[in-house]
Amino acid sequence: MTVFLVGAGPGDPGLLTVRGAEVLRRADVVIYDRLIGSELLELAPRGAELIDVGKSPGTSHHQARINARLIEHGRTGRLVVRLKGGDPFVFGRGGEEAEALRTAGVGYEVVPGVSSAFAAPAAAGIPVTHRGLASSVTVVTGHRGDPTAPTGVAWDALGRAGGTLVVLMGMSERQRIADELMAGGRAGDTPVAVVHWGTTRDQRVVRSTLADLASVDLPAPAAIVIGPVAGLDLTDRPDEPS
Amino acid sequence: MTVFLVGAGPGDPGLLTVRGAEVLRRADVVIYDRLIGSELLELAPRGAELIDVGKSPGTSHHQARINARLIEHGRTGRLVVRLKGGDPFVFGRGGEEAEALRTAGVGYEVVPGVSSAFAAPAAAGIPVTHRGLASSVTVVTGHRGDPTAPTGVAWDALGRAGGTLVVLMGMSERQRIADELMAGGRAGDTPVAVVHWGTTRDQRVVRSTLADLASVDLPAPAAIVIGPVAGLDLTDRPDEPS
Repeated sequence: MTVFLVGAGPGDPGLLTVRGAEVLRRADVVIYDRLIGSELLELAPRGAELIDVGKSPGTSHHQARINARLIEHGRTGRLVVRLKGGDPFVFGRGGEEAEALRTAGVGYEVVPGVSSAFAAPAAAGIPVTHRGLASSVTVVTGHRGDPTAPTGVAWDALGRAGGTLVVLMGMSERQRIADELMAGGRAGDTPVAVVHWGTTRDQRVVRSTLADLASVDLPAPAAIVIGPVAGLDLTDRPDEPS
Repeated sequence: MTVFLVGAGPGDPGLLTVRGAEVLRRADVVIYDRLIGSELLELAPRGAELIDVGKSPGTSHHQARINARLIEHGRTGRLVVRLKGGDPFVFGRGGEEAEALRTAGVGYEVVPGVSSAFAAPAAAGIPVTHRGLASSVTVVTGHRGDPTAPTGVAWDALGRAGGTLVVLMGMSERQRIADELMAGGRAGDTPVAVVHWGTTRDQRVVRSTLADLASVDLPAPAAIVIGPVAGLDLTDRPDEPS
């Protein structure tokens, strides 16, 4: 058991799990993504090898190189922590990394993390489910994959399905996403909240509606929350009195 | 700031967050649900008051009594931890508790947790999203609410929307859920995995298909995972060689 696929959580270092912190404190090698904060990396022992693999994420070629490095370091028998933002098995491509390790015969353990899909809305005072407002939540990536792939997102059907929608990595496609959801039946006045760097000191929240989503201008990383719950603000200290 | 709404995670005590463990270790009062394991409660200081409110969950009357206790204890100025399974803002009714505290003028902080909706499948070796298999995941409760409520689940639309579906609290309604999803277009041979007490020592996993879901007999708590990813087993030590 040499490679730990660890979910680093949404950004706030306090939201790392106890198990994640435990293996990170014993790591010989930490292989991490660009979104991992320096505070978390400081948990690793002095002398641990820190490897940033997050320069050009997203491509399969890039992922293949990460897999190769995990296998290479895993085979040395050192304690390798693969530190991934959020949860490794939720849009983290952790499944691909686990498959690669398994095929190579390298032992691994998956340590789930707090997903930013739920924690970023929470940090903005938004419960993704709430009595009378939403009894389901769909998490989806707005990153455009191969539109002919069987896993392409059926945005119009999601529009019809109701419930809360959390779109990760969707800011560059927000106009198209809003259009397709409205074509599927979501009302233009559906509340929307965009949460940039949720749970961190750099958190910014912009409230809008589905019809006006395109005019919201926040940089990545951002979670787009769509649905009646996006109109709630249950933070203990709201930005404005309510 | 006196009441902490803390997500206890899916069951494995190692999946509590660092922040959650920190406030639990300082708690004067812990108000907890029936699904919280004793190992987590042992983190509270000796002498802390431990209050089990999980005898008859689910009803609004029961929830109102919990809210009243949170307010009552919060007003004493002692450090109150409200320990909830999974994540307080994901089917945890944490939003209602936050609303009640806010209305009463009692300070609170939400500490997200690892949701069992993602961690239970992970513990069974199932990533809820995976390249080529699923690019969205919907989490939904199978607990039958008021069917006329605006938040009723559009199961047939979910059937059409594709992606992975994770149903929490759905075992008693599994026949109806499978029927409605198939009516919406999901194939009867869609892989299904039912994960009982995921991440704990009592974990049990049964694999099936949507058409045969009704014949899966596992007690609550269980997460039902529906979709092509439910056919994966990326646990490091699978039940059977693959």
